[in-house]
Amino acid sequence: MPLAATATDLGARFAEVRAFTESLCDGLATEDFVVQSMEDVSPTKWHLAHTTWFWETFVLTPFADGYQLYDERYPFLFNSYYVQAGERHCRAQRGYLSRPTVEEVFAYRRHVDEAMAEFLDGFAEADRPEVADVIEVGLHHEQQHQELMLTDLKHVFAVNPLRPAFREPVDVPSVDPGPLGWRPFEAGLHEVGFESQDATTSRGRFHFDNERPRHRQFVEAFEIADRLVTCGEYLAFMADGGYDDTPLWLSLGWASRVENEWTEPFYWERDEASPTGYSVFTLSGMKPVDPNEPVSHLSCFEADAFARWAGARLPSEFEWEVAARTVWDGTGDAPGPFADAGRFHPTPAVPVGGDGTPAESPALRQMYGEVWQWTHSQYTPYPGYKPVEGALGEYNGKFMANQFVLRGGSVATSRSHIRPTYRNFFPPDATWQFTGLRLARS
Amino acid sequence: MPLAATATDLGARFAEVRAFTESLCDGLATEDFVVQSMEDVSPTKWHLAHTTWFWETFVLTPFADGYQLYDERYPFLFNSYYVQAGERHCRAQRGYLSRPTVEEVFAYRRHVDEAMAEFLDGFAEADRPEVADVIEVGLHHEQQHQELMLTDLKHVFAVNPLRPAFREPVDVPSVDPGPLGWRPFEAGLHEVGFESQDATTSRGRFHFDNERPRHRQFVEAFEIADRLVTCGEYLAFMADGGYDDTPLWLSLGWASRVENEWTEPFYWERDEASPTGYSVFTLSGMKPVDPNEPVSHLSCFEADAFARWAGARLPSEFEWEVAARTVWDGTGDAPGPFADAGRFHPTPAVPVGGDGTPAESPALRQMYGEVWQWTHSQYTPYPGYKPVEGALGEYNGKFMANQFVLRGGSVATSRSHIRPTYRNFFPPDATWQFTGLRLARS
Amino acid sequence: MPLAATATDLGARFAEVRAFTESLCDGLATEDFVVQSMEDVSPTKWHLAHTTWFWETFVLTPFADGYQLYDERYPFLFNSYYVQAGERHCRAQRGYLSRPTVEEVFAYRRHVDEAMAEFLDGFAEADRPEVADVIEVGLHHEQQHQELMLTDLKHVFAVNPLRPAFREPVDVPSVDPGPLGWRPFEAGLHEVGFESQDATTSRGRFHFDNERPRHRQFVEAFEIADRLVTCGEYLAFMADGGYDDTPLWLSLGWASRVENEWTEPFYWERDEASPTGYSVFTLSGMKPVDPNEPVSHLSCFEADAFARWAGARLPSEFEWEVAARTVWDGTGDAPGPFADAGRFHPTPAVPVGGDGTPAESPALRQMYGEVWQWTHSQYTPYPGYKPVEGALGEYNGKFMANQFVLRGGSVATSRSHIRPTYRNFFPPDATWQFTGLRLARS
Amino acid sequence: MPLAATATDLGARFAEVRAFTESLCDGLATEDFVVQSMEDVSPTKWHLAHTTWFWETFVLTPFADGYQLYDERYPFLFNSYYVQAGERHCRAQRGYLSRPTVEEVFAYRRHVDEAMAEFLDGFAEADRPEVADVIEVGLHHEQQHQELMLTDLKHVFAVNPLRPAFREPVDVPSVDPGPLGWRPFEAGLHEVGFESQDATTSRGRFHFDNERPRHRQFVEAFEIADRLVTCGEYLAFMADGGYDDTPLWLSLGWASRVENEWTEPFYWERDEASPTGYSVFTLSGMKPVDPNEPVSHLSCFEADAFARWAGARLPSEFEWEVAARTVWDGTGDAPGPFADAGRFHPTPAVPVGGDGTPAESPALRQMYGEVWQWTHSQYTPYPGYKPVEGALGEYNGKFMANQFVLRGGSVATSRSHIRPTYRNFFPPDATWQFTGLRLARS
Repeated sequence: MPLAATATDLGARFAEVRAFTESLCDGLATEDFVVQSMEDVSPTKWHLAHTTWFWETFVLTPFADGYQLYDERYPFLFNSYYVQAGERHCRAQRGYLSRPTVEEVFAYRRHVDEAMAEFLDGFAEADRPEVADVIEVGLHHEQQHQELMLTDLKHVFAVNPLRPAFREPVDVPSVDPGPLGWRPFEAGLHEVGFESQDATTSRGRFHFDNERPRHRQFVEAFEIADRLVTCGEYLAFMADGGYDDTPLWLSLGWASRVENEWTEPFYWERDEASPTGYSVFTLSGMKPVDPNEPVSHLSCFEADAFARWAGARLPSEFEWEVAARTVWDGTGDAPGPFADAGRFHPTPAVPVGGDGTPAESPALRQMYGEVWQWTHSQYTPYPGYKPVEGALGEYNGKFMANQFVLRGGSVATSRSHIRPTYRNFFPPDATWQFTGLRLARS
Repeated sequence: MPLAATATDLGARFAEVRAFTESLCDGLATEDFVVQSMEDVSPTKWHLAHTTWFWETFVLTPFADGYQLYDERYPFLFNSYYVQAGERHCRAQRGYLSRPTVEEVFAYRRHVDEAMAEFLDGFAEADRPEVADVIEVGLHHEQQHQELMLTDLKHVFAVNPLRPAFREPVDVPSVDPGPLGWRPFEAGLHEVGFESQDATTSRGRFHFDNERPRHRQFVEAFEIADRLVTCGEYLAFMADGGYDDTPLWLSLGWASRVENEWTEPFYWERDEASPTGYSVFTLSGMKPVDPNEPVSHLSCFEADAFARWAGARLPSEFEWEVAARTVWDGTGDAPGPFADAGRFHPTPAVPVGGDGTPAESPALRQMYGEVWQWTHSQYTPYPGYKPVEGALGEYNGKFMANQFVLRGGSVATSRSHIRPTYRNFFPPDATWQFTGLRLARS
Repeated sequence: MPLAATATDLGARFAEVRAFTESLCDGLATEDFVVQSMEDVSPTKWHLAHTTWFWETFVLTPFADGYQLYDERYPFLFNSYYVQAGERHCRAQRGYLSRPTVEEVFAYRRHVDEAMAEFLDGFAEADRPEVADVIEVGLHHEQQHQELMLTDLKHVFAVNPLRPAFREPVDVPSVDPGPLGWRPFEAGLHEVGFESQDATTSRGRFHFDNERPRHRQFVEAFEIADRLVTCGEYLAFMADGGYDDTPLWLSLGWASRVENEWTEPFYWERDEASPTGYSVFTLSGMKPVDPNEPVSHLSCFEADAFARWAGARLPSEFEWEVAARTVWDGTGDAPGPFADAGRFHPTPAVPVGGDGTPAESPALRQMYGEVWQWTHSQYTPYPGYKPVEGALGEYNGKFMANQFVLRGGSVATSRSHIRPTYRNFFPPDATWQFTGLRLARS
Repeated sequence: MPLAATATDLGARFAEVRAFTESLCDGLATEDFVVQSMEDVSPTKWHLAHTTWFWETFVLTPFADGYQLYDERYPFLFNSYYVQAGERHCRAQRGYLSRPTVEEVFAYRRHVDEAMAEFLDGFAEADRPEVADVIEVGLHHEQQHQELMLTDLKHVFAVNPLRPAFREPVDVPSVDPGPLGWRPFEAGLHEVGFESQDATTSRGRFHFDNERPRHRQFVEAFEIADRLVTCGEYLAFMADGGYDDTPLWLSLGWASRVENEWTEPFYWERDEASPTGYSVFTLSGMKPVDPNEPVSHLSCFEADAFARWAGARLPSEFEWEVAARTVWDGTGDAPGPFADAGRFHPTPAVPVGGDGTPAESPALRQMYGEVWQWTHSQYTPYPGYKPVEGALGEYNGKFMANQFVLRGGSVATSRSHIRPTYRNFFPPDATWQFTGLRLARS
């Protein structure tokens, strides 16, 4: 996706992102928009309305002259967690709301889309960079909710004994990616975090506050795996009793494993008809577990236990960033696959062949897209971190406790959403995102 | 409603009951069918399907030659609690099911309705009384779910900050019912429970197993109030600090009051604009609390504390039955109002006037309909009680612990569903049914 | 124990009851007095102090001229649940109190004992019957806590992996009590509840308020078993899959069984070395389960499921009372065994032999003592029930919800504490008391 | 305390550490040893036995020829969390054990002390460095439990309404420490973590595995406060509504604040008689909050919110280490005060006076002892971290999730236990340790 460079482009990008959100609703029944299948999940209807509330609250109300709230009761219903933006409906009860109906929510979107289109018509980005920056946040915010719509719908469909499919399956040939290679990096001082490029466009300068300030990190020598861990490798861990081998687990991880009765990755089920003994629920329904595919929907605790079993460890987020920059610097098209591929399920790594890559320094595959990669870094502010002012300052900083950093994006992430410096974060027992791992060692 | 006396009539009554179920869905949005707003509540969609599953499981499958299950996956989804009828979906997760859709559930109903119509066409009740009796259970079962549809939808709408209305309000003039009178009864030996009338119709002999055997109870002398307790009387209890006066409460009741932070009846809210200081959520939206109306949505604990405050007590279920038989013996039209009135909200008692009723033995008003009346009787088997054989034996008997008996029906009960011997039961902290009280004293 | 007839005797009985309380502490280590092994359990130290607080609060403070509180902080610590007697320490935290020490609690007892002795010296019962009645309540209250001291210590010792013994085992020969006989009773109108005898002594007129008023109950014809259910019979229920046979269980009972993972009676453990396959923890340590002994420590739910499995049911509390009066009318020495036997474990029934008892109407054995007998009666006020005035009115009435009545006493009850009309009550999932069952049928 | 340099000294240090443990029990009543006042707390008796089990398990059993377990049942009771050392008793139930008695636990200590004395008599440290290292771990392990004994007893006494005092109060004059100064540090590359000194004694080389490997960290420029935050400063935060100002709090911190209803530091109580409006529970009983003393018993969330309110932040653990090395390098006597001072309560900082310290680079006060200092660093393995082999490898590494690092020691820590590289860790909501904070800023 080319970078937007003009006011007109900002409008076009707005339209594109909003349209992609709605394209994810294609084929859904009205009932599918309503359900909240666990507290972490939000109904699709809520995502559609919340992202719309964001535009209304942070762009139209403060900046669009004469804009009137579409419905005065909606801010209470559709604020997620922005304390400074007012009271809000209880998160755990989003699935209790039959009204407003899906149709009413789409009408709300229409209303806000039209107001935004009018606002952006002739908007001079260069003259109002602070407004352009908020719009940019809104675009990335909506992309995050696109990803959540996919992972939340996956959960809604998975808990239903009828196991509905969200999309038709897309057949991809399964190829053995071959044995893991290790790519060495020497010790050294690195700059990490987002680099201010003094960009003239909001797109060019966009990043979340948690990626800043760019600062120096000394990274000791390490090696990182040249691809993601596969289902086949994970099956070997399971066969070796990994889920019952307490010393492999963090103390809190073991408590989670016992409490949740984890015996295989989330969405896996025993299935005697499958060659691997397991099937997995995907957004295209159930299918046999493919040993060549990257393993997904692991908690950080499972990823960490697997790594220990494998005689390795998870990378730190800085090791990951140093390695990932060698593959893509954040300009041009990101390697993928991402959500725009429309498959919503990870793919086996392409085997390393007679491509001249030296065995002692193999090319890094699958650094972006596929599945988010857990790191062992707990989510902490960078030195000199300052959240942005106002309600948007609640976006990132307030979550900096008991969360682990993930990097790289997934098949549910938009291509234009990801960067080498992008820091995702989830509690270490979360499993409903597309989350896997890449090994590292010292 | 006249009693059905022939096979033809059984078919007609089937059609009538099924149609009334669907009439309760008039005006609902698709989204309204999906939501489960607390564990006790079931989605409307689920009620529609579960009642249909009942006909399929207990009538069509065993008795209709060649009947094929509509969908083999539905019994798992729509069995409620009949252990002997197979595995079932978790009750707490009924609101997680977006599929089957509402439309698919209505198609399921159509299919079963047609099969039932065919089965009942020419069905000779007199020849197959045991089948007729199961059909009769099915009709009453569906009526119970009609009542639950109303109380569950009330809850779904109430938790929604938009406070949608289920039906247009019906204005009823508010009249002061006058002071409470006390109707005395002498001590004596009574027969209680359903009397087998050797009826020739399933309708005539219908009762639930918990109403049997008819047996003797010695009832000591008592007095019972001539009408229900009003909101005005309950407001006086509140104004007198009833919710903070621990000695008025049962120990478990006080624990419930503290845990649930009860400070007024369920569905009431403080409202300075209301003359009584409170408004109440009804199936027609919010309205000021009317002091003349019967108080409703009380837990048994609140009813019991109120009675103690009033220097009285709740009646036993036998006292109630003895008194209630003097008003209506179970034949002919039941006094109401019931669900067929379509108002779904209780009405003030008609004042006692110059009607010649002696003050020392006033006529009993509001014994049936309006609101269920809590008794202090815990739900226990009658002497010689035997549940019916098979899965239908799980209907009543297995709930005989930690539930209190209610009598008389409510504005959400079907007129043809109620009898003087009818025993409803709920845990003493339940508040989402139309539940109020009538005082008694020794 | 002869009935006390004079003021002097009231003093003697006071001394005797207080001494028996302390005799139960013989051989305890200081540490044993401190532990609260679950919320239902209280530390021995607390029982010693709470019973002392009772005398101080209800006798010495109101009636003994010039009595000063021993320690002003003790009422807060040692009030159990008497709301009208002031604020109190949280029940769940009684095990958090290392102070006052055991020695200090015994000093508290000494102080109150001396004040009571002085007060009772020359106390003319006939002149102050209302004070005598409160003292009588205090004696029975202390006896109840004696029983709780035993059952609570049993729990404290049982959860300790070292399994200490409270008392040396007393060997009793194990004799097969023979097959169950059934004693028939005809239908009839009975007076139940405590009969006011216009007694001249507090002992003679003592009863708890929940046994009053004496009133009429019509009891339909029934048969009752001539002895308690044995461990051997219960083992047959277990062997027949009783714990997995859902239809045998009340709905709430099944939920308790699943939640608590009940697979055998409380205090039983699998033990391959035992002929019955199980051993049981007793107040004299572990011993093999003896098939001839009455089964104990059953919840009401287990007792109820067993009875259903056996083709019978639990008796109602009125059936029990009618039957029990034929064995002992409440005067003279109660049949036992009770706590004064000092064995604290039930004994096999004496076999019915060539004693001329007609098989069609066998003698009733084990009606009193051994183990409390669950009834299917939920704990409800008698017609015309009035709690006593003041804080002592909280003794019984406020617990009349979600509890089941037990009758007959146990090996942990004092002989002089029990009566045919005595109503004990516990929630249906309680298992830490000596609770078993006797079958009935209609 | 001089470093031990010979085998004889290891024996002497063993005796000294063991004796200090027991000196902390001076004046305790038997009952005080038994109580577990919350899950995090262990009974004193348990600490005494667990530390003894450690010697038995990790030294005597593997290394002392012919050593027999004192009691075969004790390893199950007194293992804390070492999975590889066998099954263990449930942590939450340590307060349920009345047996073994305190006297029996002291006999256990005597037995093990004698066996250890015999083992250490003539033990040549230089010949068996791997055994010496385990003994060194045991000494530091026991010191950690000494600290826990103090903090746990403080909790046990605090929950008791009688508020017993552990020790007589020691009067310390309260002096205003003066305004906060800021000590600047330039950006630079630092070595952090324990430096292997190739020491010839176990004492010289001792460190926990989590302090290793020593590695390089680039630390950006920062300033750190020259003393701890005082109660007076914290009172200003409270007076300014800090506990209700949601944006000051981490998201999880706010949830903890709401759930725990925090409105002041743990152990504080409103007290109108105190000049500051609050009193605080100490190991010498209640006393008025002194505004000059360091604030203590803060959760990391409170410390973090305070820092944000103050326009500053918590330091990272590396910033702390860089700063702390300028005060003490880990050799010679550590600045304090520590547990050997016997006061068990923090002291106001000595005011900065005419001592020639330049205002622009003030001397760092209170870097060690007083109260543990929360950092914003979540507890993570150092690059190349390897836990030690075997059960002792469970000491540190398995806790590396959802814990925050604290540095510096407290008034409950032994002087010889602390080092500049020492990493303590607790969950961010823990408050029962002596935990406060020092501010930092970029």
